[in-house]
Amino acid sequence: MNDGAAGVALLGLGTIGTGVARLLTAEPARIARRAGRPVRIVGALVRDAGRPRGPFAQDVAVTTDARRLIEDERVSLVVEALGGTEPARTLVLEALAAGKDVVTANKALLAEHGVEIFGEARRLGRALAFEGSVAGGVPIVQALGVGLAANEILSISAIVNGTCNFILTSMTRDGVGYADALAEAQRLGYAEPDPTFDVDGTDAAHKLAILAQLGFGANVATSSIPRTGIDRVPAADLRYAGELGYVVKLLAQAKRTEAGLELQVAPRLVRHGTPLADVSGPYNAIRVVGDVVGDTLFYGRGAGAMPTASAVVGDIIDVVLGRAAITFRALGLWREDGVRSMPAPPAAIKSRYYVRFTIADRPGVIGAIAQALGARRISIASVIQHDPGDDAPPGSPVPLVIMTHAAVQADVAAALDEIDRLDVVHPPSICLGVED
Amino acid sequence: MNDGAAGVALLGLGTIGTGVARLLTAEPARIARRAGRPVRIVGALVRDAGRPRGPFAQDVAVTTDARRLIEDERVSLVVEALGGTEPARTLVLEALAAGKDVVTANKALLAEHGVEIFGEARRLGRALAFEGSVAGGVPIVQALGVGLAANEILSISAIVNGTCNFILTSMTRDGVGYADALAEAQRLGYAEPDPTFDVDGTDAAHKLAILAQLGFGANVATSSIPRTGIDRVPAADLRYAGELGYVVKLLAQAKRTEAGLELQVAPRLVRHGTPLADVSGPYNAIRVVGDVVGDTLFYGRGAGAMPTASAVVGDIIDVVLGRAAITFRALGLWREDGVRSMPAPPAAIKSRYYVRFTIADRPGVIGAIAQALGARRISIASVIQHDPGDDAPPGSPVPLVIMTHAAVQADVAAALDEIDRLDVVHPPSICLGVED
Repeated sequence: MNDGAAGVALLGLGTIGTGVARLLTAEPARIARRAGRPVRIVGALVRDAGRPRGPFAQDVAVTTDARRLIEDERVSLVVEALGGTEPARTLVLEALAAGKDVVTANKALLAEHGVEIFGEARRLGRALAFEGSVAGGVPIVQALGVGLAANEILSISAIVNGTCNFILTSMTRDGVGYADALAEAQRLGYAEPDPTFDVDGTDAAHKLAILAQLGFGANVATSSIPRTGIDRVPAADLRYAGELGYVVKLLAQAKRTEAGLELQVAPRLVRHGTPLADVSGPYNAIRVVGDVVGDTLFYGRGAGAMPTASAVVGDIIDVVLGRAAITFRALGLWREDGVRSMPAPPAAIKSRYYVRFTIADRPGVIGAIAQALGARRISIASVIQHDPGDDAPPGSPVPLVIMTHAAVQADVAAALDEIDRLDVVHPPSICLGVED
Repeated sequence: MNDGAAGVALLGLGTIGTGVARLLTAEPARIARRAGRPVRIVGALVRDAGRPRGPFAQDVAVTTDARRLIEDERVSLVVEALGGTEPARTLVLEALAAGKDVVTANKALLAEHGVEIFGEARRLGRALAFEGSVAGGVPIVQALGVGLAANEILSISAIVNGTCNFILTSMTRDGVGYADALAEAQRLGYAEPDPTFDVDGTDAAHKLAILAQLGFGANVATSSIPRTGIDRVPAADLRYAGELGYVVKLLAQAKRTEAGLELQVAPRLVRHGTPLADVSGPYNAIRVVGDVVGDTLFYGRGAGAMPTASAVVGDIIDVVLGRAAITFRALGLWREDGVRSMPAPPAAIKSRYYVRFTIADRPGVIGAIAQALGARRISIASVIQHDPGDDAPPGSPVPLVIMTHAAVQADVAAALDEIDRLDVVHPPSICLGVED
């Protein structure tokens, strides 16, 4: 641009695009000061150019012609805020081919097409920044890529889906069931009308694929990450977990082990009094253990227009300063010849486990269960069985909650399978891993 | 160096210097991969070249000739790991004058001589990096300077002194007094033989001066920061705070207000269930509120050889990649013409307060206290007074704990002054702010 300004093409004026437009147009002096020169939106790609826009987006020139916007000579930087894989993938590749740097917050795009997009960016000598793709405003990409650069990362445990965390927090705090908590989350805008990809763990798996790339240089296909959603966690188990001193969180985890990289997305028990336990409502947090630094945690709002705009505009500043190009080259992410790490087989994952059986209230049942566990060298750390009360008829079903010591997942699964076939046990039993 | 390696002069082989030497010599391949070329220690400045060194430091060439080491043409980067203000200040200025970039973890040096050192580095076109100076391995300098660059920072609340946090955690958990907890911290190496600068809040004030510079561009003299140490917090108040649902932490705080920048270091009540409350033992955490991102928190080990080496070697990588130079120029910290922000007068600081009075157990006392508070529009949120028991003689002293609603510090101080002069009250009353 004439005054040395950096020109931005904004692809998409949805939640994130509007947040970015708002910040760039409301705080031009601040952004210019931080970026070393003015940053201006040249235009925004929309589907319907005639649709009325909110107060900040209305001053932005809109177009439906993606190619013309991307190739506009005033544009040096393309911000992809479309979400999903297409047309985001095609347009990002076009932007790179046109010699533009790219900023994106699109986790699905990176998780599914990281190798292709990063390869093209490298080949063409462009920079690509993606702080907003994991945990919204939390600068975790910076932390893993720059701040902790002296470390070999040992493990990552992350609460990266605000919808799930909001629902689990409501269920725990208010004692309501999953369906009611989901409805509340939808009413407040913390869950989509169709929440499938959030509650079944897909969104968290996308983010975990990116974290695994950053932390371990591992090219992991999202589909290869074992995942369990939160839609199958009964409210009763949140209550029993609480009695044992734990809270249930949907954790996305990556851990370096001798067997390979252990990856999973699952609801797990987190001990009260540890920092992940207090990550409530829509907040996200990523616990990172490095071999030099030890235990660290990064916390903040994981979604929403402005937290994500904080990350995207931070990336814009980084690109304009020329720093993002250095980071991009130094990290060498999603390389063709990178670590093609297959996740370690989930059966090998070692952990303590929380198990709830529904048993007939008869003598000998606990003994039979303890024997099945003991036969696979699974030892019991604690047990909860409440008195069913005098009113309950003899033999009526009662819950039995057991916390095990560390055991191998395959052994626990086999023991549960055997126990569920006992005629004094009402299957299925509930089993959740425990975060230590 | 001949093979394109970056040569490092290490000033000091104490705790931090040895940690840095250990990481650079034990993981040369990792550091070379991350920095884009090998990083080698040319030599280390020590006071006594004949003294035997530990396993990692023993391979490092030592010297007592600072100038010769700094001016060695193989050295491109000087790591200052001496601590304290002199000779650190002189040697850093010599390094800059010799055309070398500088990495330091020295909070006292930056807090006391930031304007001079940064001014020289700018004048000479050198870079200076200082991630290790606040909160050890927690990449908070990166977060404030880079990751949150799109934000105006609204407030910072930080647990940045591991010694104090260890002592307060022990007192809370084990119910022991200050002296016993300090002795335990000294036995475990979490407190110096002379812990004065830690427990009186000086160390936290140094770090707060750096955080205020990063977050608010404010040139604050450490001496102008009001501070209260932890050595005057009775164990009883940790117990009462617990009954009210709070834990006491030494907080270093900076907050943008209409009256100016509010700065203080003081023990404060932090509510259970919020992330700062679970920062235990030697850990550090910094809560940062930005106008775009909202609430964020950064957590990790705040001291020790390896966590600090994580930060220092991260800075070395950043300098070698050329990224630190960009950040250094972009941030423009400690400018002569920077914000010469005087802290807001502490009397104007508004907060809720925890107050404990020791009163005679007689009718009318609570009423007199409530009246003195009410006269200054300080309203009471909750009260704890335990039954002294039938064995206590009438009129014997009992504690009365009050939690106020938000009030101005000057009003609370005046009310306490008046109440302490009542003949049914045993002065001095204890007063602690509450973090919300």
